[in-house]
Amino acid sequence: MPHIYWEDFEPGQVIELEGSTTLTKDEIIEFACEWDPQPFHIDEEAADKSIYGGVIASGWHTGAVTMRLLVDGILGEAASLGSPGLDEMRWLKPVRPGDTLRARAVVRETRPSRSKPDRGTVKVTWETYNQDGEKVMTMTGIQMFARRAPAPAD
Amino acid sequence: MPHIYWEDFEPGQVIELEGSTTLTKDEIIEFACEWDPQPFHIDEEAADKSIYGGVIASGWHTGAVTMRLLVDGILGEAASLGSPGLDEMRWLKPVRPGDTLRARAVVRETRPSRSKPDRGTVKVTWETYNQDGEKVMTMTGIQMFARRAPAPAD
Repeated sequence: MPHIYWEDFEPGQVIELEGSTTLTKDEIIEFACEWDPQPFHIDEEAADKSIYGGVIASGWHTGAVTMRLLVDGILGEAASLGSPGLDEMRWLKPVRPGDTLRARAVVRETRPSRSKPDRGTVKVTWETYNQDGEKVMTMTGIQMFARRAPAPAD
Repeated sequence: MPHIYWEDFEPGQVIELEGSTTLTKDEIIEFACEWDPQPFHIDEEAADKSIYGGVIASGWHTGAVTMRLLVDGILGEAASLGSPGLDEMRWLKPVRPGDTLRARAVVRETRPSRSKPDRGTVKVTWETYNQDGEKVMTMTGIQMFARRAPAPAD
């Protein structure tokens, strides 16, 4: 049962999520072969000659790994109702074989739903870091959560 | 060898991409079990009772399927150099088991690189449709491409 609800978020909160994922070269290539088969993700020789100087993870792989960190680290315990979208998704640094990723949530704002008293939204920036503390990806988006108690009627 | 370069894009172009992908319920659940194990993606009973009324694909699954359509439909033939990020990623409608997805590119603007004469960027909105012609996802982002011929020196 979830124990984190919309009311538990407030602007300015920084939540370090437990858990980390290390990406191997095989995993990077396997993911990209299925979903993003561009040469700098799947072909070591071509990647070495590319502007990236070696195989890098698909941005979708970094995103999927981050999503799993978010579910394991917070959303799985929360009354999450999904998300209508993201803004400002940035791949800031290449993710390379052997990198270990962690994630953090920075809460930007919270809003009760205007039409539905049982829920609210949280604007949050999800940040993904590598083992050197470098930010490799950020994404800011809206996450919907159920309320612990319905909004009082006006 | 790529045959589509930065010079081949111009604002206003709408490019229908060949190819489509049909998502089965098993594929939706399998993807989400690995990357986004929230109840409305992986648990049929919980999903039936959720605000979505049934299992829906993870937004990351829709994104990954779309990325594969983009690679197969255009980026695989293009001198793509990757992307620094996306803006305005929107999941507009749930993607459900049996849905067949297609993609389209709408070119917004093109810019030569200020610092690197061998490349340029294209701002593009990637749109994903289902079999009923409904837009299920849009994402606007910057895609980098090599130039066919280097920019003339100033």
